[in-house]
Amino acid sequence: MAPRPGGVALSLRRLLLGRPLRSDESGAQRIGVIGALPLLCPDALSSVAYGTQAILVVLASAGTLALWYSLPISAVIGLLLVVLVISYRQVILAYPGGGGAYVVGKETLGPVPSLVAGASLLIDYTLNIAVSAAAGVAAVIAALPMLLAWRVELCVGLVLLMTAVNLRGTRESSLAFGPPTYLFIVMVLVMVAAAMFEGKMFLHPAHPILPAPVVPGLALFVVLRAFSSGSTALTGVEAISNGVPLFKPDSVVRARATMVTLGLLLGVMFLGTSFAAFGYGIVPAAQSTVLQQLAAAIFGRGIFFYLLAFVTMGILLVSANTSFAGFPQLASLMARDGWMPRLFLTKGDRLVYQNGILVIGAAASLLLVIFQGSVIRLIPLFAIGVYIGFTITQVGLIKKHLTERSGQWPTMVAMAGGALLTATVVVVALATKFLEGAWIVALVLPAMVVTFFHIRRHYLAMNQELRLPDADLRPKRQPMVAVVPFSGISRTSQSSLSYALSISENVVAVNVAFSDEQEAQVKEAWAAWAPDPSIRLVVLRSPYRSVTAPVMAYIDRLQGEVGQGQVIVLIPEFVVGRWWQYLLHNQVGLVLQANLVFRKDVVVAMVPFRLSGR
Amino acid sequence: MAPRPGGVALSLRRLLLGRPLRSDESGAQRIGVIGALPLLCPDALSSVAYGTQAILVVLASAGTLALWYSLPISAVIGLLLVVLVISYRQVILAYPGGGGAYVVGKETLGPVPSLVAGASLLIDYTLNIAVSAAAGVAAVIAALPMLLAWRVELCVGLVLLMTAVNLRGTRESSLAFGPPTYLFIVMVLVMVAAAMFEGKMFLHPAHPILPAPVVPGLALFVVLRAFSSGSTALTGVEAISNGVPLFKPDSVVRARATMVTLGLLLGVMFLGTSFAAFGYGIVPAAQSTVLQQLAAAIFGRGIFFYLLAFVTMGILLVSANTSFAGFPQLASLMARDGWMPRLFLTKGDRLVYQNGILVIGAAASLLLVIFQGSVIRLIPLFAIGVYIGFTITQVGLIKKHLTERSGQWPTMVAMAGGALLTATVVVVALATKFLEGAWIVALVLPAMVVTFFHIRRHYLAMNQELRLPDADLRPKRQPMVAVVPFSGISRTSQSSLSYALSISENVVAVNVAFSDEQEAQVKEAWAAWAPDPSIRLVVLRSPYRSVTAPVMAYIDRLQGEVGQGQVIVLIPEFVVGRWWQYLLHNQVGLVLQANLVFRKDVVVAMVPFRLSGR
Repeated sequence: MAPRPGGVALSLRRLLLGRPLRSDESGAQRIGVIGALPLLCPDALSSVAYGTQAILVVLASAGTLALWYSLPISAVIGLLLVVLVISYRQVILAYPGGGGAYVVGKETLGPVPSLVAGASLLIDYTLNIAVSAAAGVAAVIAALPMLLAWRVELCVGLVLLMTAVNLRGTRESSLAFGPPTYLFIVMVLVMVAAAMFEGKMFLHPAHPILPAPVVPGLALFVVLRAFSSGSTALTGVEAISNGVPLFKPDSVVRARATMVTLGLLLGVMFLGTSFAAFGYGIVPAAQSTVLQQLAAAIFGRGIFFYLLAFVTMGILLVSANTSFAGFPQLASLMARDGWMPRLFLTKGDRLVYQNGILVIGAAASLLLVIFQGSVIRLIPLFAIGVYIGFTITQVGLIKKHLTERSGQWPTMVAMAGGALLTATVVVVALATKFLEGAWIVALVLPAMVVTFFHIRRHYLAMNQELRLPDADLRPKRQPMVAVVPFSGISRTSQSSLSYALSISENVVAVNVAFSDEQEAQVKEAWAAWAPDPSIRLVVLRSPYRSVTAPVMAYIDRLQGEVGQGQVIVLIPEFVVGRWWQYLLHNQVGLVLQANLVFRKDVVVAMVPFRLSGR
Repeated sequence: MAPRPGGVALSLRRLLLGRPLRSDESGAQRIGVIGALPLLCPDALSSVAYGTQAILVVLASAGTLALWYSLPISAVIGLLLVVLVISYRQVILAYPGGGGAYVVGKETLGPVPSLVAGASLLIDYTLNIAVSAAAGVAAVIAALPMLLAWRVELCVGLVLLMTAVNLRGTRESSLAFGPPTYLFIVMVLVMVAAAMFEGKMFLHPAHPILPAPVVPGLALFVVLRAFSSGSTALTGVEAISNGVPLFKPDSVVRARATMVTLGLLLGVMFLGTSFAAFGYGIVPAAQSTVLQQLAAAIFGRGIFFYLLAFVTMGILLVSANTSFAGFPQLASLMARDGWMPRLFLTKGDRLVYQNGILVIGAAASLLLVIFQGSVIRLIPLFAIGVYIGFTITQVGLIKKHLTERSGQWPTMVAMAGGALLTATVVVVALATKFLEGAWIVALVLPAMVVTFFHIRRHYLAMNQELRLPDADLRPKRQPMVAVVPFSGISRTSQSSLSYALSISENVVAVNVAFSDEQEAQVKEAWAAWAPDPSIRLVVLRSPYRSVTAPVMAYIDRLQGEVGQGQVIVLIPEFVVGRWWQYLLHNQVGLVLQANLVFRKDVVVAMVPFRLSGR
């Protein structure tokens, strides 16, 4: 069995991940506008599935009359979208290498803003996966209520499935996720068109459009909270600017075209849904979603209704997929700059940053378990990070244009207005939803930034230490003492002592005895065996039945005599045929190993001793 | 920080476990009859807290008239108890070394019956902890219903607490657990006496004692199921015979006296409770326990009622403690015979078999989580194992007496009748509760026996292989090739290559390049560095960006050239100051290590490289 490097595990890996790709196959993984919509835009597009609902849930708490306010709130969010599209077209132009808020912040505003932006985006990628999975499952439950009991399990199952799909690579994901994206766009547009055709837009049966109803007890606070909830509808519009390197050449042109396409589609879909929901008098319900209620109101509970549930689930999965593409990309950028662990730089067999994918998959699953797969409970955490990113990007770009004296005035004004608007959203969201969960983000975000600084300091210090002070420092010989702990005379001690003799002139065999009798026995057996006379026998005494402690103390004494860095300890390691057999051997060797290499700075050699495997 | 071997972890350990004990402090940990009641008997005594209830819950499902059948069922169980006390007094006499069913089976009936008995007891020790914790929490919830929401958490918390207490050692446990045991005995006897005094024994208000009511639809099946549930009242009477070595001398006399004491107490308490419960017309309820209902009926919801709840919890904890004493004892006996992993033989600082305690603590916690801390759901798994153990013990003892022509006829007949009765209980329990959970035991028990055989076969094969074929096989020198994988010229490679030069004449520095440029770069840097000319440079190529695979393949080729067992690989290991910094270094070294030592049979040396710890 020794020469096969993989076996069943390898076959399973192939099945799940596909064949390994050579480094030069990298270029083939690129996309155009059509391919970019399902890969980079669903985060934004799918927000239609919960954006309107997030507004209505908050307003409904102040009475059904308050629902009227969803009209101006949606309009303001639509205005925000226009500004963001203008800003992000500038970002793509200025930063074709991708990286979005982090890269812009880094080049224009310095490390702290860029790290704040980076942390915000990493948090939001994770939240987007959690919210999308939760909203997707909610859509299906609206159609099939008997699945309610399995909500958390379904959410986590979906995330794990997506993790596997993304470990296979982005191009295949893009192909698989095209249909639900386009179907969702078409179905929502059909609903909006039908609502217009039926003349139900804006025209709520009970309220006139103007003037605004004065709702008793409806505080500004509720309206602002509804607005900040609704602002989640725009999460994800930055994804295109982060993913510019994924486009086919000329990538900037294609990315900017995608940005405009997204703006138009998202605007029509979100505003259309909000206005129609008001027109049909829809009140948010616990068991259904606003989108499904709208579909039922327009077309009844027929094929359209059920198909929409599954298509919504589909695009929300694709939305989560946006984050599976964005998180590893950003993490690798930050790792390249030394702010995050280097393991995010490793590309695997399938040319994807597999560690990033695994980390975000695990984090999103954890969030779903903690928040029990509830969209409403996750929403207060969401959006804050995205809008921090929006703000930093726009401020950075304005600064860049000012410094370089580039850029046209109308764009500049739009961006300044945009930055002000998005910063306001952050403040409003923090203020109105702090106790509902926003405090978590307020805590985690600075902690992440501090961690980034610690990581970078560690790497800088390490590089300093690893650098050879002068080229003359070359490998040199020095005498080594080889120590072999053994419990009795057997084939393993014979094998370990053979290796020790082979690598050193100075070999010590160490035994730990718990009593006088044991000590006498070992010395007698040793004398009878009479191995190579150059091997010294040392018997240590241990009243507390510990083997590790006396050996550690002995190594300390030995290092004092011969000098640090001149001791090598050989520890026999049983190699057995089946995994469970490892449980049958005392783990003394492993404990000794870990203690010695990490605490005593001695070289520890593991000497394999293969048992037949029965 | 290097020279301190423990620090905070050690202090915490001291606080939880107490100071380490020397091997010669072992004798002081012994007990008498008074000390044995809280240490070995609470398993049996505490069954009063759920035995009667287990009968009534099943009967109540057939209507309240059926409760009458609790009288004859309890009487039969009382008879069973008499027989078991007689049998186990013989066991103690014949086997003063302890071990109960396992030891008796081993010496009289051979390996398979003894292993079946051993597995049964190990299962039941675990179930006893789970059932006791669940029943204890149920008693407290009967008094304080607001704790219902924390049932599982309370159960698991108690098990973890007990694990910690037992890791401290048995004598201290015995002292701490005395008061609840004696208080429980006294309080139950007071209740039984009060019931007799009030003349309510047997005399249910609605039913006459004779003749038996014919309950419509009450099948024999229900009566048998109620009987098998009630038989859990006798679980634990074998604990004394397993624990004979824990007694002070003369241990056999003390153990036999304890057995009689237990029989009398348990008989009066169990029968008294069952008869009084019938007399007071108690019907089992979901929120309370029969014992608490009885207390309320006799003394009202006063101090007695609340005190009883906590005392019941107390003795049930002590009962669980019986298993914390019994499981490690039995596991160590079986490990000594080679049927279980040797780690169960290790005594720790505090002279207890700590691994057995940790394993049973973890297993019981898992059971409580799976069965949601419900006594009713755990009961069907319980008792089967105990009664298998009873049966094997009695059959074995009869065989021993027959073979040795020892033993008196009246005892022999009692034991034969007992064996028949207990075997019947096993069959009845399996037949009437198979689908409710007994199938799990029916599955796990044979699996354990098969595992025992595998373990023993492995140890026997290993001992065979480790034995030196002749005393002339002594350690001998052989030339070694030292291989040093390196990623670039730095202090780490300088350090690793220094060690390699120090232990071998034949050193190979191995680099993995992903492209032509990388290969050229490495060769150029190497030439410029010009280390010791005896070091060979080998650059391997890896198109799939894997470092492990090409190194493994190279080692294979090298072993083909120089011979198996003559290659040592030196891998640098970063030693950093804080745990999280280990996450910042690529784990390539660890992966390589595991692959090499376990798959290629090469010696792997970890070369520590200490970073300053910033």
